[in-house]
Amino acid sequence: MTRKRLKSDLGWSTTDRIVVRGHDLVDLIGRTSLGDFAFLELKGRLPTKQESVVFNAVAVTLVEHGMTPSAIAARLTYFGAPESLQAAVAAGLLGMGSRFGGSIEEAARTLQEALASGGQDADLLDLARGVVATYQKTKQPIAGLGHPIHKPIDPRTPRLFQIAEENGLKGRHIELMQLISEEAGRAYRRELPVNATGAIGAILGELDIPWQVGRGIAVMARAIGLVAHIQEEAGEPLAAEIWNRVESEASEHNRRNE
Amino acid sequence: MTRKRLKSDLGWSTTDRIVVRGHDLVDLIGRTSLGDFAFLELKGRLPTKQESVVFNAVAVTLVEHGMTPSAIAARLTYFGAPESLQAAVAAGLLGMGSRFGGSIEEAARTLQEALASGGQDADLLDLARGVVATYQKTKQPIAGLGHPIHKPIDPRTPRLFQIAEENGLKGRHIELMQLISEEAGRAYRRELPVNATGAIGAILGELDIPWQVGRGIAVMARAIGLVAHIQEEAGEPLAAEIWNRVESEASEHNRRNE
Amino acid sequence: MTRKRLKSDLGWSTTDRIVVRGHDLVDLIGRTSLGDFAFLELKGRLPTKQESVVFNAVAVTLVEHGMTPSAIAARLTYFGAPESLQAAVAAGLLGMGSRFGGSIEEAARTLQEALASGGQDADLLDLARGVVATYQKTKQPIAGLGHPIHKPIDPRTPRLFQIAEENGLKGRHIELMQLISEEAGRAYRRELPVNATGAIGAILGELDIPWQVGRGIAVMARAIGLVAHIQEEAGEPLAAEIWNRVESEASEHNRRNE
Amino acid sequence: MTRKRLKSDLGWSTTDRIVVRGHDLVDLIGRTSLGDFAFLELKGRLPTKQESVVFNAVAVTLVEHGMTPSAIAARLTYFGAPESLQAAVAAGLLGMGSRFGGSIEEAARTLQEALASGGQDADLLDLARGVVATYQKTKQPIAGLGHPIHKPIDPRTPRLFQIAEENGLKGRHIELMQLISEEAGRAYRRELPVNATGAIGAILGELDIPWQVGRGIAVMARAIGLVAHIQEEAGEPLAAEIWNRVESEASEHNRRNE
Repeated sequence: MTRKRLKSDLGWSTTDRIVVRGHDLVDLIGRTSLGDFAFLELKGRLPTKQESVVFNAVAVTLVEHGMTPSAIAARLTYFGAPESLQAAVAAGLLGMGSRFGGSIEEAARTLQEALASGGQDADLLDLARGVVATYQKTKQPIAGLGHPIHKPIDPRTPRLFQIAEENGLKGRHIELMQLISEEAGRAYRRELPVNATGAIGAILGELDIPWQVGRGIAVMARAIGLVAHIQEEAGEPLAAEIWNRVESEASEHNRRNE
Repeated sequence: MTRKRLKSDLGWSTTDRIVVRGHDLVDLIGRTSLGDFAFLELKGRLPTKQESVVFNAVAVTLVEHGMTPSAIAARLTYFGAPESLQAAVAAGLLGMGSRFGGSIEEAARTLQEALASGGQDADLLDLARGVVATYQKTKQPIAGLGHPIHKPIDPRTPRLFQIAEENGLKGRHIELMQLISEEAGRAYRRELPVNATGAIGAILGELDIPWQVGRGIAVMARAIGLVAHIQEEAGEPLAAEIWNRVESEASEHNRRNE
Repeated sequence: MTRKRLKSDLGWSTTDRIVVRGHDLVDLIGRTSLGDFAFLELKGRLPTKQESVVFNAVAVTLVEHGMTPSAIAARLTYFGAPESLQAAVAAGLLGMGSRFGGSIEEAARTLQEALASGGQDADLLDLARGVVATYQKTKQPIAGLGHPIHKPIDPRTPRLFQIAEENGLKGRHIELMQLISEEAGRAYRRELPVNATGAIGAILGELDIPWQVGRGIAVMARAIGLVAHIQEEAGEPLAAEIWNRVESEASEHNRRNE
Repeated sequence: MTRKRLKSDLGWSTTDRIVVRGHDLVDLIGRTSLGDFAFLELKGRLPTKQESVVFNAVAVTLVEHGMTPSAIAARLTYFGAPESLQAAVAAGLLGMGSRFGGSIEEAARTLQEALASGGQDADLLDLARGVVATYQKTKQPIAGLGHPIHKPIDPRTPRLFQIAEENGLKGRHIELMQLISEEAGRAYRRELPVNATGAIGAILGELDIPWQVGRGIAVMARAIGLVAHIQEEAGEPLAAEIWNRVESEASEHNRRNE
């Protein structure tokens, strides 16, 4: 059997040098921010000033969402394994699946696939109508539209689109996302504004980041938030209280039913 | 039983507002970089310009270390569960335990505890000698000194200390780390320069970040690197090749021994 | 908002009693084997003698598959976090996704959905032809057929079917699986025997275990195997050797290309 | 650099054979129960009839503990990533750390180390007094004694010890555990009966299973319980309700404090 060579373009080192994505790490330390370094890791080059602002804006939006199922799971895990902060963060990340991280992915994919199928000159309104019609057939909610809490609009969306525009990165992905929102509103006869997930999904396209990596952006950002939750949990623990409440309610139910 | 109130100072929201650490998220998006946002999450306030440079320098240093056990584990996990990018990243993070993430924690703890025990006016040379003596008794290698590959010095260390100094953040933690290196060199009669782990451990002290969070800084940074590894693995897979080599060598050994 | 009551039928306790699935745990300890207890957990009742033999046979088949990607990932994780055996096992389980655990699920689903759609009196040969035709259209390999290594047949399959038969549990799921194999062989003009995954997928149907739980059977069994791998790794470590080989080959590639 | 050979004694295969721990897997399928197979994996040989009863009794005791932090974390993870049953189970296992799985480990270690240090002829009462004195000095609770809920005694303990006795496996580890309980009762002037963790820790010693594997027994057993929790969660979801309660209480706290 022929052997495939093992190689990676991300990082390697010699006795006196550490290279990341072709840059000497020592040259980057002190000059590159964490967000720009993440861009470098994913894209193989440092961002322009404009790309930096927009990419960091997207990442920042994804760090902290309060007491999510992920954050609660991380805290409960830390309760049982306080020696393994990394395991608590990992447990929290495991819940960033199809329901959460997946929704960014789907919004980005919908836009990227529609634009790729249509070609450079495709009429965006036609594409928007096509997307809405496809979702209507499957009876699935359209990825990136509406929000259970933030009504009538998700305040992050106009801010994210404004930043993209100010930095010359408001292009066809954002335009298509907005048209899908308008068309969906007409088709379903209710307001279906673009939510933060939809805005981020669109901006990933403007940054030429493939939709497959969309969930990864959420995962790397949320890892930061989960570390903060564990730090807070270490100081002011909630896990035992949550456990006690759930356990005693469930046990009482069974005792009564005997 | 009295109920403890569930609360978190990290994030919460209303219909028209999302608040993170007391800031309206919409005010931060576009103005705050990912690294500064991480600082806010951990410390409850935005960094000064100087703290920002130093904190980002530390975080950037921890993102990418090439083909580590963590990166290989993440790639093997992705091979089996390509539908769960988050699970592959989580698997990689799970290896950031006592051997890797733990070493930063230990370096930071050694310094913070020594300085706390000694008080404001403690003589740093005395503290350094005490630390070295304690390690000598337990026959453990001193956290933060020496490196198997980067010889004679770890190139990241002088750079990190330079940045700390340029930003007014070279204080007693860094000084103590350097004295420990000198004293250890004398005690063990060989060069034991401060490595990147030791430099970061010391700088965490200068940033007033408790050692318990040290591993968390490594975890949040490495999550970024692991997403990049999965992106690369998706395009140029190595996992099957690694698996085949390991599996066939192990099986051959058994077949021959029959 | 109305509150939904939190309850679970699995386990609960009082000061002097622990109840699992309606049984006093103390009555089960010493009388029930681990495999039968797993059956109880999943089905809500203890197995008959025949079901016990067949269920344990299925579970046993899934415990140990040698140096799989999962086992290697678990060992690499243990190397970095030897204080967290549970994290190493968890890392290994995370790779039991669509490629591995998922294939049992798919085989079981194919059979259960075909039989459900056809009704009690459906002709099995018609169903088998329908399944093969559906797969041919999507150009996907049929779940549960063929094996890259075990040729011409997977030795586990005849043994598993024999045990099912001896215990009165060879019914329409197994029959349909075998007909699919024959029809697929005709359609693709090569031998496509039922592999262990297909045999297990069929037997789950005979045991009336829904396909959605199929991956869970693999996960619970493999957890045992992974604990054994970590025990072996603790005594005779391989992780460092695997890491060194992969890392040095990848770094050499980069050094040469400079 | 010399290469270390990669090998494993657990499992390997050829085209027509699968070997686990030296046995042809096909010979084991249908004859060996899941619990006995786990014993084989860990010990390298099948259990005697007596060992089988005792080992299965221990494993069964560890499968299901109701709505533990682990079970809740697994359910919350499944809510976010329903496509990854394995990730939900893994998240649950990650909480089996020092607080839960670790306590079995510590009980087993205390006994095994005391007996090893004392030699074959050591007086058990002396050893028990030594153990209690050591714990008193560190002001830590003695591993394996007392229980917050099951009072005055943990009903699993007498049952487990009875089974060990009936099967000729009540030896010096169990005797020492019982003496520690008596001595501790005297030293602390309150009843400190052996709990299930202590009973299991002692029996592991009787089965000649090293304490380092103690946490692994808990992990493999609990993996079964967690699959059952995910199956129940899929049918009767609780995660959203738990999330909503925690999130709304935490958010309300913040809103009021503005």
